[in-house]
Amino acid sequence: MKVAGKAMRTIWLEEDGQGVGIIDQTRLPFRFETLILSDVAAMATAIATMQVRGAPLIGAAAAYGMALAMAAGVEDGDVERAHARLMATRPTAVNLRWALDRMREVLLLTPPGDRRERAYAEAAAIADEDVDICRAIGRHGLHLIRAAHQRNPDRPVRILTHCNAGWLATVDWGTATAPIYLAHEAGIPLHVWVDETRPRNQGAFLTAWELGQHGVPHAVIPDNTGGHLMQHGQVDLVIVGTDRTTARGDVANKIGTYLKALAAKDNDVPFYVALPSSTIDWTLEDGVAGIPIEERSGDEVARITGLADHGGLETVRLVPQDSPAVNYAFDVTPARLITGLITERGVCSPPDLAQLFPDHQPPERMGQVPVNDE
Amino acid sequence: MKVAGKAMRTIWLEEDGQGVGIIDQTRLPFRFETLILSDVAAMATAIATMQVRGAPLIGAAAAYGMALAMAAGVEDGDVERAHARLMATRPTAVNLRWALDRMREVLLLTPPGDRRERAYAEAAAIADEDVDICRAIGRHGLHLIRAAHQRNPDRPVRILTHCNAGWLATVDWGTATAPIYLAHEAGIPLHVWVDETRPRNQGAFLTAWELGQHGVPHAVIPDNTGGHLMQHGQVDLVIVGTDRTTARGDVANKIGTYLKALAAKDNDVPFYVALPSSTIDWTLEDGVAGIPIEERSGDEVARITGLADHGGLETVRLVPQDSPAVNYAFDVTPARLITGLITERGVCSPPDLAQLFPDHQPPERMGQVPVNDE
Repeated sequence: MKVAGKAMRTIWLEEDGQGVGIIDQTRLPFRFETLILSDVAAMATAIATMQVRGAPLIGAAAAYGMALAMAAGVEDGDVERAHARLMATRPTAVNLRWALDRMREVLLLTPPGDRRERAYAEAAAIADEDVDICRAIGRHGLHLIRAAHQRNPDRPVRILTHCNAGWLATVDWGTATAPIYLAHEAGIPLHVWVDETRPRNQGAFLTAWELGQHGVPHAVIPDNTGGHLMQHGQVDLVIVGTDRTTARGDVANKIGTYLKALAAKDNDVPFYVALPSSTIDWTLEDGVAGIPIEERSGDEVARITGLADHGGLETVRLVPQDSPAVNYAFDVTPARLITGLITERGVCSPPDLAQLFPDHQPPERMGQVPVNDE
Repeated sequence: MKVAGKAMRTIWLEEDGQGVGIIDQTRLPFRFETLILSDVAAMATAIATMQVRGAPLIGAAAAYGMALAMAAGVEDGDVERAHARLMATRPTAVNLRWALDRMREVLLLTPPGDRRERAYAEAAAIADEDVDICRAIGRHGLHLIRAAHQRNPDRPVRILTHCNAGWLATVDWGTATAPIYLAHEAGIPLHVWVDETRPRNQGAFLTAWELGQHGVPHAVIPDNTGGHLMQHGQVDLVIVGTDRTTARGDVANKIGTYLKALAAKDNDVPFYVALPSSTIDWTLEDGVAGIPIEERSGDEVARITGLADHGGLETVRLVPQDSPAVNYAFDVTPARLITGLITERGVCSPPDLAQLFPDHQPPERMGQVPVNDE
């Protein structure tokens, strides 16, 4: 999508055909800086320090990390070492493992002399496939927004979203944001309510930034606000992303998503979840009982970094020194609260998910790892 | 309650019988400072700048402000001027008006020569009545906590609260916290989940601080977390305060309260609202339709002040410079989501509220003012 008027992706091959460019997402929203990564070590650092984050982007980044490794050495040992090194950056990230396994499999089947070229091509394919999937999600979701607009053509369609399932988390378009960007490009007037998404504020720091850069009207709201807005008819639909979706359509997403789903249900506001089918764990039915939820450091609640008046970034404490803080990263929204799942194959209600994917991936696709997208 | 081991109230008469002491609540939780106010101007400033906040405390503070005014002049004109001056500090605060009207009425019926003494006595009575009401709320709520403890005697009772309906918002005990403090003093093991309560963080800044000072085990959580905790059996009951309660038991409280009530309902967690009967607006039934909700500056969402590593306070921006932020201060929780109202006369379900107060105050008690407790 656009940054300051210029179209870009979150990850790209530099013109020298070797270096890989990324946006340093740890600096957003107050600094926009790009980095050129020249070796696998730099990519491992970028993933580990969350300069790139979001499951789909992490996958593409890991794939390009394998390509950078092949530029330095193409033996089987080089493939294995790069796989291990990149895997260690975010050991529980499902998409990271998927992309690395795919790259390893392809590379080990390729003669060493062709591996460098093959690796860049496969990484580009992984990135392009992600863009295609997101765009497909966008096209299907666009119909929902268009229908909302046709019901009330005289005012913007008001969409609430939580966390960042935006293009910054993918290679382009995003998942929850893909329908929004396509609707914006189709000329449908929009107003997006962006949950700030405590404690890590990905809504305020990432979603608001990317919507603003692309020119989509929006406002940041505290996570507490959505219920009030829905009670007063200020939300036409909710679209969120998901980190993991069970076979019956329970959805693990950023903590607080469940509360918005409850409010949507209570106020007859349609609640949609946008997802690439790669997030579906076909081995699991009951998400509340079955998905382990990562507990992260209380420091993420107690301290926050923002832009100080002097123009630099400052970290401040928000909790009394003697008070502990507890930080669960995700919660599970039961399928019964979800109006529809927006996938790359179309929109379905949760009970119809398996029908939409009769060829679904084998059960060993995902293990009992904690949800951890970023 | 206790601060660093020493029992105190939020407002008190100094030993000279004239000055009025307060805690400067704008400095909490990172600085504990008390102020001695010597004239009505200082009290007006304290109320206007929210050095004192919370409806009951504002009422007591305004009453003492009238007493300070009488120490300087006791004519009818002095009474009227002090009333007007204090009323202007928070024009929509219902409790402020109530306390000021009561003081004016008493003082105008008192011979000027006795007004100074009468004013201090009446202000002390207003403060003491507030303490009595809160303690009564606490005694009734204590039974609910004790019953929860008896159901699971081997672990702490886990109570979730939102915002600050603590002793800092009243003269002592608080409303939602009164049952908690009484249970703590009765030796019942407790663990309080404190919603940080964005955007103004009164949970993290005030509730966590006062619980910590009094020695009550607690943890601060993002507002997004409560639903997840309830899904996983980590909350035994919810107790919140209210700024305004309708005759049928709809409750206007800090934004986000409604979301917690939805989660409690969805998980069969009892949801209680603690309230002095003075917050009941007997003229109103439907709170969602009838209570105007104050919209405050988006700056309260976009910027926050916390403790920097250098030991001073810093204000940082949390929202991209070009993104607007929207800030509704309260939401309304419908009575259907409320298990019980904890009043100074006892606990009742919302439909039984009028029965508990057959002598309820006349309909002119409250007007169509926006909710604004602090």
